[in-house]
Amino acid sequence: MPLVRISHYSSRYSWSREKKPISRAVYDAMRETINIPEGDMFIIFSAHNDEDLFIDPQFQGMNRTDRFVIIHITLSRGRTVEQKQALYARIAERLHESAKIPPDDVMIVLTENNFEDWSFGKGQAQYVLNPPAWARKVEKGN
Amino acid sequence: MPLVRISHYSSRYSWSREKKPISRAVYDAMRETINIPEGDMFIIFSAHNDEDLFIDPQFQGMNRTDRFVIIHITLSRGRTVEQKQALYARIAERLHESAKIPPDDVMIVLTENNFEDWSFGKGQAQYVLNPPAWARKVEKGN
Amino acid sequence: MPLVRISHYSSRYSWSREKKPISRAVYDAMRETINIPEGDMFIIFSAHNDEDLFIDPQFQGMNRTDRFVIIHITLSRGRTVEQKQALYARIAERLHESAKIPPDDVMIVLTENNFEDWSFGKGQAQYVLNPPAWARKVEKGN
Repeated sequence: MPLVRISHYSSRYSWSREKKPISRAVYDAMRETINIPEGDMFIIFSAHNDEDLFIDPQFQGMNRTDRFVIIHITLSRGRTVEQKQALYARIAERLHESAKIPPDDVMIVLTENNFEDWSFGKGQAQYVLNPPAWARKVEKGN
Repeated sequence: MPLVRISHYSSRYSWSREKKPISRAVYDAMRETINIPEGDMFIIFSAHNDEDLFIDPQFQGMNRTDRFVIIHITLSRGRTVEQKQALYARIAERLHESAKIPPDDVMIVLTENNFEDWSFGKGQAQYVLNPPAWARKVEKGN
Repeated sequence: MPLVRISHYSSRYSWSREKKPISRAVYDAMRETINIPEGDMFIIFSAHNDEDLFIDPQFQGMNRTDRFVIIHITLSRGRTVEQKQALYARIAERLHESAKIPPDDVMIVLTENNFEDWSFGKGQAQYVLNPPAWARKVEKGN
């Protein structure tokens, strides 16, 4: 269910062999910390020229390099603050392990929507017709 | 008012003649189901190489192909679950009619914001200054 | 903290020398009207071919040209309607001053999230661990 958009510099560093491990790292981190279902992978990479990214290199005490990535995740409402903190830690950890991205270079932004805001195909709202287990737990306030 | 972002594969299928009918189909479906005003068309297509899209081919029982599209719509809060369901059904139907996109290949994601979150130009918040009829209906709880 | 995505036509007008003043204008307008911290600049430009943008040229009484830009800002919840109106006015004004973009060509869309929805790096949720002054004011209902 999460829709993940990953933006990065195109011109300074070759990402081609690393997109697969990166996408896997983000997917695995979401599986481990925010209970997404198996197979729920919808990830879009966008490369940008240097002249198209205006990123402060130090805001919030970071040392950002040409490996910088913005990971913008749209997901259903209901994760706790603790789950989100676990998600950030796990994504940074796994991206470092699998693609040697420095933790200072991993920016993550979440945008939440509702169960009825997703259609995975066939013109249907799958989570309205058949809420998955994790969705029912969220409804109950977990 | 909806801002529509459509992401698709660039390398496998030629979309050039179909973007116009696709944009029209999405616009018409929004006109029919969620009451957007005439002329309210703001649609951005983004093509992605195969290596930049990591899309599960079967999640939620679909059979996704190279025609897959993600339609991400930012729109004002207030549509009912039923309206959203009608929107998904109508988009899938019209995309099949006008561009032969299989319904399994149509993923739709909504992100809602507020009336005051839109400026259409001139540095003004048009829906704050002059709420349209459909906005007043939404405010009353329709 | 705002993540800013700016979409524009690539084929009709040369933007290369103007992206820096445009990014600065948007940053300065956010500093002046919605109290973002110094150095908080995360701006992504995306160029689109004519055939990839379907933009109504006149909706809401505008006269849109090849200079049209959509500025989509993701930011933390809590700004008042008045602050947002000031933001729109200031962005339009500064873009006209610094890059001669006609105010009719400046469309702005906001999407709000929460303090805990941001990680600026190191796998941490900086605004959870250490809410900035402006965030505490928002919490108190300012």
